[in-house]
Amino acid sequence: MKLTILGSSSALPTSDRYPSAHVLNAHERLFLIDCGEGTQMQLRKCNLRFGKINHIFISHLHGDHIFGLYGLLSTFNLMGRENPVHVYAPEGYDQMLNSHLKDFDITLNFEILFTPLKGKDPVRILDEKYITITSFPLQHRVEAFGFVFREKLAERNIIKASIEKYGIPFVRIPAIKKGEDFLTGDGQLIRNEEITTPPAKPLSYAYCSDTMFFSRLPEFVKDVDVLYHEATFDADLSELAKMTGHSTTIDAANCAKAANVGTLIIGHFSARYRDISPLVNEAKTIFPATIAAIDGTTYDLRELI
Amino acid sequence: MKLTILGSSSALPTSDRYPSAHVLNAHERLFLIDCGEGTQMQLRKCNLRFGKINHIFISHLHGDHIFGLYGLLSTFNLMGRENPVHVYAPEGYDQMLNSHLKDFDITLNFEILFTPLKGKDPVRILDEKYITITSFPLQHRVEAFGFVFREKLAERNIIKASIEKYGIPFVRIPAIKKGEDFLTGDGQLIRNEEITTPPAKPLSYAYCSDTMFFSRLPEFVKDVDVLYHEATFDADLSELAKMTGHSTTIDAANCAKAANVGTLIIGHFSARYRDISPLVNEAKTIFPATIAAIDGTTYDLRELI
Repeated sequence: MKLTILGSSSALPTSDRYPSAHVLNAHERLFLIDCGEGTQMQLRKCNLRFGKINHIFISHLHGDHIFGLYGLLSTFNLMGRENPVHVYAPEGYDQMLNSHLKDFDITLNFEILFTPLKGKDPVRILDEKYITITSFPLQHRVEAFGFVFREKLAERNIIKASIEKYGIPFVRIPAIKKGEDFLTGDGQLIRNEEITTPPAKPLSYAYCSDTMFFSRLPEFVKDVDVLYHEATFDADLSELAKMTGHSTTIDAANCAKAANVGTLIIGHFSARYRDISPLVNEAKTIFPATIAAIDGTTYDLRELI
Repeated sequence: MKLTILGSSSALPTSDRYPSAHVLNAHERLFLIDCGEGTQMQLRKCNLRFGKINHIFISHLHGDHIFGLYGLLSTFNLMGRENPVHVYAPEGYDQMLNSHLKDFDITLNFEILFTPLKGKDPVRILDEKYITITSFPLQHRVEAFGFVFREKLAERNIIKASIEKYGIPFVRIPAIKKGEDFLTGDGQLIRNEEITTPPAKPLSYAYCSDTMFFSRLPEFVKDVDVLYHEATFDADLSELAKMTGHSTTIDAANCAKAANVGTLIIGHFSARYRDISPLVNEAKTIFPATIAAIDGTTYDLRELI
């Protein structure tokens, strides 16, 4: 899985940080997470293909997470898109979206398949061949949700030389990839471990923005390989963070530590910080494997862990 | 007056052209004309101060002319703005805007003073010390309006040496700047032309996007120094232009010629054109003083004419 940060500012974009938007590439399917203003321009800059985006996840209905959606949908339309787009957003947004599109004279040529986000517990919102996606509630000024993307365990890899060595017929290969042993023509049992190698460890990624810290949060993102967690403020501004429903560097690091994640990426920085390194250093005092999000960067998750 | 092009793409932004947005700087007051997605980022890139924008003109309610407004208003809010913002947009948009802001949980700390654009004739929508602004109807798929900005004739400039020479008291200067002659203490009449120089010729700028050609258009932008006119398509695509309510290069050039303007800036280019120079050359066959809009460029209007 590869993660591209399109935007990592908080509500006020700066000259080098756009509002929130991430793209997770899982097996060449692009999952767009939040869609702040300028997302379509950033997609273009990062050479990410619009046609590969079929799923858009909106954490909450604040402008810096959604003002790019209208332009992106219009652009899909102009590019002749016909495939439906799955939109996951807080309950009730489908009606708003329809009303906004009508206000702006937009008739989409493709369908929006809407999944409402709701509830106080994690919900499996997508279950596909390679990946499962779960939403979970955050604590912000308005209803907000985070997302966990978990690769499924792939099949075992067959050792090619063993096919010839034991005369394995092709029809048996799917079962062997699933873990079955192989019985040769002369009755010899070949154990699966001899003719296959294990698949790569499945990766997982969680996105938490915007939220303040709350006790159940680590449970929701438990053991993920990479956690993106907002750190709008430094530790000195913890009161402001609480008041505005945001996290400090320390909140993000405490969550990462309690959840036993692999790497923490902090972002959604307040525009007041020109230099982000003090924020990273602050988080590192609690969770050393912390890095700062950089707009336009693509991270190979396997290289991060 | 100085014109900064923030965006000159048509509906589909490209890697070097953002959706429509212009800033006209008239006597250090910034007039924002259209507000496509990314306008606030482009303002920042061009070092234009948000606090100097008090008037926003929206030509019509298509996304590529308005999707940046929500982010910009949110940013005004976060920057602590208290001064009202004047918004000029097609009739009925004020109610939409209020409804959209509510949907996105935005409570503005400042007032929006709304002027509805309407009617079949030009309407004076602003009359200030240095400038008048007139809206006029365009012909597009939805109700759309253009704008003419005309500097007022400034006062005459008093020749400083003449103050001492003729003993002109300071209280008389305002009248002399308005054109009055001066009577000296010993009864000598000094003609105004002897003690003043004429003011600079007032400049004018018109914005026409989006529109197809129609017979009254040249009358609406008659004699302006600089005309920005959309030229979404080349001449070969005139049928498509008509169907979509847009102009070709030839339409724009014909309008400029019939209106006797000084310089024509064409823009709002379809994303199909990577190289714009053939479009400029096409327009030049009819109106030689044609240039292409370039995002991020500031034009001193006096240098253009």
